[in-house]
Amino acid sequence: MAEIRKETREKARKTKTVAEKRNDPKKKQSSAASSRAAHDDKEVMALKLKPAPLSPAMADLFKLCEEKLGFVPNVFKAFSFDMVKLEGFVGYRNSVMQGETGLSKVEQEMIATAVSTQNRCYYCVTSHGSAVRGMSGDPILGEQIVMNYRAAGLDKRQRAMLDFAVKLTVEPWTIEEEDRERLRRAGFSDRDIWDIAVIAGFFNMTNRIASAIDMRPNSQYHAIGR
Amino acid sequence: MAEIRKETREKARKTKTVAEKRNDPKKKQSSAASSRAAHDDKEVMALKLKPAPLSPAMADLFKLCEEKLGFVPNVFKAFSFDMVKLEGFVGYRNSVMQGETGLSKVEQEMIATAVSTQNRCYYCVTSHGSAVRGMSGDPILGEQIVMNYRAAGLDKRQRAMLDFAVKLTVEPWTIEEEDRERLRRAGFSDRDIWDIAVIAGFFNMTNRIASAIDMRPNSQYHAIGR
Amino acid sequence: MAEIRKETREKARKTKTVAEKRNDPKKKQSSAASSRAAHDDKEVMALKLKPAPLSPAMADLFKLCEEKLGFVPNVFKAFSFDMVKLEGFVGYRNSVMQGETGLSKVEQEMIATAVSTQNRCYYCVTSHGSAVRGMSGDPILGEQIVMNYRAAGLDKRQRAMLDFAVKLTVEPWTIEEEDRERLRRAGFSDRDIWDIAVIAGFFNMTNRIASAIDMRPNSQYHAIGR
Amino acid sequence: MAEIRKETREKARKTKTVAEKRNDPKKKQSSAASSRAAHDDKEVMALKLKPAPLSPAMADLFKLCEEKLGFVPNVFKAFSFDMVKLEGFVGYRNSVMQGETGLSKVEQEMIATAVSTQNRCYYCVTSHGSAVRGMSGDPILGEQIVMNYRAAGLDKRQRAMLDFAVKLTVEPWTIEEEDRERLRRAGFSDRDIWDIAVIAGFFNMTNRIASAIDMRPNSQYHAIGR
Amino acid sequence: MAEIRKETREKARKTKTVAEKRNDPKKKQSSAASSRAAHDDKEVMALKLKPAPLSPAMADLFKLCEEKLGFVPNVFKAFSFDMVKLEGFVGYRNSVMQGETGLSKVEQEMIATAVSTQNRCYYCVTSHGSAVRGMSGDPILGEQIVMNYRAAGLDKRQRAMLDFAVKLTVEPWTIEEEDRERLRRAGFSDRDIWDIAVIAGFFNMTNRIASAIDMRPNSQYHAIGR
Amino acid sequence: MAEIRKETREKARKTKTVAEKRNDPKKKQSSAASSRAAHDDKEVMALKLKPAPLSPAMADLFKLCEEKLGFVPNVFKAFSFDMVKLEGFVGYRNSVMQGETGLSKVEQEMIATAVSTQNRCYYCVTSHGSAVRGMSGDPILGEQIVMNYRAAGLDKRQRAMLDFAVKLTVEPWTIEEEDRERLRRAGFSDRDIWDIAVIAGFFNMTNRIASAIDMRPNSQYHAIGR
Repeated sequence: MAEIRKETREKARKTKTVAEKRNDPKKKQSSAASSRAAHDDKEVMALKLKPAPLSPAMADLFKLCEEKLGFVPNVFKAFSFDMVKLEGFVGYRNSVMQGETGLSKVEQEMIATAVSTQNRCYYCVTSHGSAVRGMSGDPILGEQIVMNYRAAGLDKRQRAMLDFAVKLTVEPWTIEEEDRERLRRAGFSDRDIWDIAVIAGFFNMTNRIASAIDMRPNSQYHAIGR
Repeated sequence: MAEIRKETREKARKTKTVAEKRNDPKKKQSSAASSRAAHDDKEVMALKLKPAPLSPAMADLFKLCEEKLGFVPNVFKAFSFDMVKLEGFVGYRNSVMQGETGLSKVEQEMIATAVSTQNRCYYCVTSHGSAVRGMSGDPILGEQIVMNYRAAGLDKRQRAMLDFAVKLTVEPWTIEEEDRERLRRAGFSDRDIWDIAVIAGFFNMTNRIASAIDMRPNSQYHAIGR
Repeated sequence: MAEIRKETREKARKTKTVAEKRNDPKKKQSSAASSRAAHDDKEVMALKLKPAPLSPAMADLFKLCEEKLGFVPNVFKAFSFDMVKLEGFVGYRNSVMQGETGLSKVEQEMIATAVSTQNRCYYCVTSHGSAVRGMSGDPILGEQIVMNYRAAGLDKRQRAMLDFAVKLTVEPWTIEEEDRERLRRAGFSDRDIWDIAVIAGFFNMTNRIASAIDMRPNSQYHAIGR
Repeated sequence: MAEIRKETREKARKTKTVAEKRNDPKKKQSSAASSRAAHDDKEVMALKLKPAPLSPAMADLFKLCEEKLGFVPNVFKAFSFDMVKLEGFVGYRNSVMQGETGLSKVEQEMIATAVSTQNRCYYCVTSHGSAVRGMSGDPILGEQIVMNYRAAGLDKRQRAMLDFAVKLTVEPWTIEEEDRERLRRAGFSDRDIWDIAVIAGFFNMTNRIASAIDMRPNSQYHAIGR
Repeated sequence: MAEIRKETREKARKTKTVAEKRNDPKKKQSSAASSRAAHDDKEVMALKLKPAPLSPAMADLFKLCEEKLGFVPNVFKAFSFDMVKLEGFVGYRNSVMQGETGLSKVEQEMIATAVSTQNRCYYCVTSHGSAVRGMSGDPILGEQIVMNYRAAGLDKRQRAMLDFAVKLTVEPWTIEEEDRERLRRAGFSDRDIWDIAVIAGFFNMTNRIASAIDMRPNSQYHAIGR
Repeated sequence: MAEIRKETREKARKTKTVAEKRNDPKKKQSSAASSRAAHDDKEVMALKLKPAPLSPAMADLFKLCEEKLGFVPNVFKAFSFDMVKLEGFVGYRNSVMQGETGLSKVEQEMIATAVSTQNRCYYCVTSHGSAVRGMSGDPILGEQIVMNYRAAGLDKRQRAMLDFAVKLTVEPWTIEEEDRERLRRAGFSDRDIWDIAVIAGFFNMTNRIASAIDMRPNSQYHAIGR
């Protein structure tokens, strides 16, 4: 046992600096970190598409984003080479994520995050994981949805909701009436099922757009809701 | 050999009626077929959502569909319980599938069909497979994209386009710069890559909405372009 | 809304020609289509194997095919470089697909098609999809089995039959007594289960032969049963 | 270290009996083993199908199997409820596995085994694994093909052959001209490619039949070629 | 456009409260969050196994953890029902993760995190993701390895390292000499390859132990390195 | 029928030599076989790592292996370039596979084999398949676990055990309380579940180490327990 004890102490000595560094509140982030954040904020995406002049509606939107979030989400910047496309996307997104619904805001973001992590989409997991943390005031919940929603100890309703959204993501061709019935038994109305379906569908789209063009999430998302 | 010869003749006798029936131009479709078509035309989807009154813009759209296609696509009917959602969807769809692009109309529909068959979506394979047949005037091409686009003998450009769209559908997290470079080497501009990405993304969304709610394709699609 | 209305009208104008072209009964198929059909009819497969003289039994078979179908299926031509192999294949095929059975002819073809679409086999989906359409007199049923048999609204018996065939195709190692029991509960005898198993097995074979050698379906299949 | 040394000695004492038992040449097999072998020899398959009287040709075949192998392979017994089906199967099998070919007998069995282990088919891995051992006189080769053919240190020719057969098994829809070219570069003629394709196809069929009906391998196979 | 502009403003009003709440530095975490953290800290795992008295070596280890990390990692607590098992695990872990190696500490943790996120292991992604953040001083790097290491813009060396570790995780049977050669070309020695292999192997083990018993990560991990 | 009868006799003549060769007890193994065995015994692994002098404990271990098994397992030789690593591995392995447990030795080896064959690990399937054969005195059981444990007719307890271990291997992220409950219903205690989890985890590790470095099983394993 002596050997193990000695090794353990040696290990402790070695990890000491690391541990102290980890917990040092004044520690500056490394320059690698700064340059990584700067890259994401500046590149937006891997395609070279020249931004068009903002339409008045979109100029308003960008201004509001700056005021409220402190930045314009890169997904809007990516679409801004063509105002018809940007307005089409924003209009649809609003129709999907806003308006009356039986789902709470956090539930909508949980679907977005669970779908996006299934598709391993860096942009969307970052931005919607941050929304789960921020809106729920429960940062660990955000991490759990990113890592494995099955480990989050969800109640029956939210579990059924994410089971449906993830199955729809992975093997949509197997969804049948029984799957909808499971949602109904968990308390969802047909109108709620519509929202779950359309939100899950929406992020299956944005995940693929983001992956296709290497869309980078604004660095500010990482800090939200921690 | 005699036995095989005899079996072959017997088989021929048996298949005779089938073969004749198959080739009979006056043959009526079975009543099963009529009732199958009627079901799809009537049910639209598995959710009970009450249609809202059409807004003027959407009333125009429905009228135009009737005039030009002879029917209103069920996807529009499915969204029509809420005019904001219908208009949001139509506006986005138009911004994705219309406007200037380096892709031909047939190429856009080939992407839609290749993605949809990967996701085994009955609604979208039916409707966009019909568009490939109808727009190309080449019904066999439509079948090939539905069954296995690799068997269609596509030129380098269209092959690269569908390889990208299908990879993006199946494992979006593995798309990297090399994949975009392959498209560029096949002659696509960054602007074209955007369109391929967004169209592939769009149908990954509609496929999942349609599967989630069991959206039924209008029966008329089946006959288009044959 | 005005914008959307205007876009919608513009879209209608654009799609007009396409829609008219689609529905024009006198429309000639494009030359691309003709050349695509000609290719499939002429190439048969990607291997260069010299046809052997037909044995009397096989000459009879080819003659009967010409008389009854109007063409010799390319699968027979592909095997015809060696009469022993052709006769072996034909004899086995007949023993699998003919003779007394509790399955209807359409059910046999439904299994063939469901298996073949799982394996995305262009040759077999084309030829057996056509058989489902032709034998059932229900062309939409044929399309549904090609696209996603789960969307076909099958009765319990046929659904159990295809569930078994597709599971056997995708993960044969997981088939156990419970799977056979499910077929029995759906009304199938042990003798029927044999037929389902052997037919599903048979097309898992031909799918792979066809894919391995790029076997092309005769162009006539596409029109059967429409 | 003393602890580990002591543990190691203790472990040695414990494993002693096991090791001795393992190497004891006079050790009788357990009664569990006997009953396991008896089960496989007696049950043949999970379907209750009454054997038909053997046709003269099949009676000859069964007699020859008894003389040469010491047993009638259970696959023949399984088909023997119907002489047309048994003769159809035997005739096709012979046309596939016999006759002139550029593949050696061992290579044919290597394909059968590699395909069957991919499909985790107990019957076919047992019977064809035994054939690889028996025909090659190299029992370790047999084990390697069963466990992972990539670990067998095959030459370029045999490796290309099994890569093709396994790809054809797992994702047949992706086989294209480049795959055939790879075989040609490894020295295979178009005629050889036919054989590889048809043999791989054949066992994808028998694997599924065997799994569907729980066909049991004759216990004698296990000892062949050890 | 007016409509979109209006919607955008309305949206801004709605999101205002959320955005403000997100950025409020004084915001208390929700009680849901506290109870979630408390659950993870208290439950450790889903199996009821009574802790054994700590051996002197292990008591030392636990004390050191408390001093340096502020907590005893739950993985150690989970093993503590049996001192032989805990010491065996700790000894092996130290031999894997400590000692001379050509890999940096951050690289070791990157492997641990990339493997663990592939296996969607809540415990290990949490604890080793925190280590990547903490040791690199680059929190975004930590997020990227959790979400999709391909999006992290890694240099050739680290990219090759993680490609190998992830391939080894997903389909270990396909690793061959060419994979090792790729590591060598990226600058790794055979000794380094050993470490990559053993670390990737180690976390494929711990991921499965953690998932099997629902091991919960100490809540403190979530805050490290942010 | 005459033709088939003739073919059958011809086949019998052809297979005669093979069959006789198979059953010839005096037949020497081919030189290919000898060289294959020699390769595995000599190469150990694909990495060039110089063995370190054995520590006293490890020298004892190696001596005991020679005495009891007749050889030193190559896994120990592979680790022997560094005594800390070898002792760490041996100590952990002993803590996992030895000590009090509710699982029998054969059950432990069944888990090891079922996991290893899922990962297609040549080294571990060889060595642990041999242990199942040797310890059970039931060689067919060993083959069944290697080929497809579902075909082994296991009792409810052992079936539940392997179902859990294989699910944990293939998709560990889906294991939940219900899976543990299934084990409890099959008679396993929480302490037993720990052992199943840790053994399954352990071989998911060794499988990947062995595959990563192409570890070769000692040739003697192949003969054990036949």
